[in-house]
Amino acid sequence: MTKIKDVEERALISIITEILEMGSISHELTPLLMVRPGEDDCAVMDIGGARLLVASTDMLHSSTDFPTNMTPWQMGWMSVAVNLSDIAAMGARPIGIMTALGLPPDLELDFLKELVEGMKACAMQQNTVIIGGDIDRHDELTIVGSALGLVGTENIIQRNGAQIGDLVCVTGEIGTAGAALDALVHNKEVYPYVLRKLFLPVPRVTEGTLLAKTGCITSMTDISDSLALSLHDIANASNVGFHIRAAEIPVHETARKMAIDEDQLFEWSLYTGGDFELLFTLKTECEGKAKKAASFTVIGEVTAKGIHIERNGHLEAVKAMGFQQFGDKI
Amino acid sequence: MTKIKDVEERALISIITEILEMGSISHELTPLLMVRPGEDDCAVMDIGGARLLVASTDMLHSSTDFPTNMTPWQMGWMSVAVNLSDIAAMGARPIGIMTALGLPPDLELDFLKELVEGMKACAMQQNTVIIGGDIDRHDELTIVGSALGLVGTENIIQRNGAQIGDLVCVTGEIGTAGAALDALVHNKEVYPYVLRKLFLPVPRVTEGTLLAKTGCITSMTDISDSLALSLHDIANASNVGFHIRAAEIPVHETARKMAIDEDQLFEWSLYTGGDFELLFTLKTECEGKAKKAASFTVIGEVTAKGIHIERNGHLEAVKAMGFQQFGDKI
Repeated sequence: MTKIKDVEERALISIITEILEMGSISHELTPLLMVRPGEDDCAVMDIGGARLLVASTDMLHSSTDFPTNMTPWQMGWMSVAVNLSDIAAMGARPIGIMTALGLPPDLELDFLKELVEGMKACAMQQNTVIIGGDIDRHDELTIVGSALGLVGTENIIQRNGAQIGDLVCVTGEIGTAGAALDALVHNKEVYPYVLRKLFLPVPRVTEGTLLAKTGCITSMTDISDSLALSLHDIANASNVGFHIRAAEIPVHETARKMAIDEDQLFEWSLYTGGDFELLFTLKTECEGKAKKAASFTVIGEVTAKGIHIERNGHLEAVKAMGFQQFGDKI
Repeated sequence: MTKIKDVEERALISIITEILEMGSISHELTPLLMVRPGEDDCAVMDIGGARLLVASTDMLHSSTDFPTNMTPWQMGWMSVAVNLSDIAAMGARPIGIMTALGLPPDLELDFLKELVEGMKACAMQQNTVIIGGDIDRHDELTIVGSALGLVGTENIIQRNGAQIGDLVCVTGEIGTAGAALDALVHNKEVYPYVLRKLFLPVPRVTEGTLLAKTGCITSMTDISDSLALSLHDIANASNVGFHIRAAEIPVHETARKMAIDEDQLFEWSLYTGGDFELLFTLKTECEGKAKKAASFTVIGEVTAKGIHIERNGHLEAVKAMGFQQFGDKI
């Protein structure tokens, strides 16, 4: 018998979505579902009127998603940030977050209080609130956040709109979380700057909504699983390819200083994940307009097919590889 | 140090909601939150227009929420039913469900497929769909559903509107799930009818929405944690009391046949939980109108204070006691 551990995560998701799609209803009472399950960062629903409802859920638990050095406050912050990053990737603004907490009986009450404080702080920073939730006893600390957002019908950005010739862009810097994670795993000195990027990620809600409103963005996704996986996601959804230039991937000087060599820095940027940045494609004629809306870096172009990265004069294929935050894949 | 196991579940929820409320923002970008976290079956958001958005999340896991005899299909069904019951309790109709699945690596793939089939079946029965989700590796099978619903601004029913003199009513029959659970726990013969009520609960979405539209319902909640706890919830929210008549609580003849005595039947009806019915209060002058909308039973009246039940000519206090589905309290 095939077991869960024998199947890759994205293959499992395909199995689930296939079951959900077979003979699905399109009942008049059910709002139009704009994307199919598993197809984008969020589910998108047409609720009538000028705005769409977007929703996303993420399950985190202590053994795979939280490094041991993380404080409860930081865990709470991160559990909200991962959800808001999905909302941001649709060009939407969050309207509320629900949280389901699985709590070990021996967990200290003060731990829980700090955790909730961290959740609240991240929500408030992004002008939203925790609207409700559920608690349950669990062997392992488990946090499931579900975020809701709204976006103008004209402004929503999905993964499937990239066009050949579009510019490929990222917000912020990439590889910083990888640098911090590597230092933690190998007990190396870790700079406060990179640690903060790993433990207290700021979801790019402001950038996502401002970019979406320019009308210049053709596709967008969050890259917390890794830049490489996100390139594959957009390529699959839009049926395009990418030509990326490694030298143009924005890297913070501290991450560069921490890397043993260029290969390690490349690994952190492309495959490690943990950076809560946005990857998007942009109409070339719009670069100036988009630059006025938010700060970002152009790292390549959309091509007809194949996902390649140019590095030291050579072209190599980008593997569909990344990490589930800090954990193993199923 | 106080630990989670030292604090009752509803006390934990109070601690969490207090933290969330302190210094909360009321930002112009954040839709008006109509209920505070922990205050009702669902969070309620004013998203503009004539309808409100309601949302609820529930965490289930195998050791505490699923009896060992339950099939994967039934687990999937139940995980959706618990969420839809919360949506129903607001008078809302569901528009979609997200599911986060924590999957043990050794779980068989066929188990997962059946589980997802069960989820889909329950969603379709209620004219809604699974809109997305997340999967993760977990030591114990964990299912977190998050349901979304819409309800007309004029039709929403909360817990806080019960008025002295209103009739107290329930849908369906109570105690059936308790009868089934007792039989399973004690390896007694279990009738298919009661087992079906326990394993395949049908959320009262149709009844909830039709009742809400009558304009006759002053408060409503789901009673899956127990009729007793739900009476306390409405009493606290509405600042009222209840006079309930035990003889009028609707009980199925099979449950009556399975009970050793009246005391056991009383226990199942009032304190065991597991029945996915609705408890609501109704303006007295509206009984006829409400009866045309849905089938229900009047079990008592709203009073000024105290929650009492009349039984064999005596009046006793209803304890705030119930079960977290089939599990222990935190």
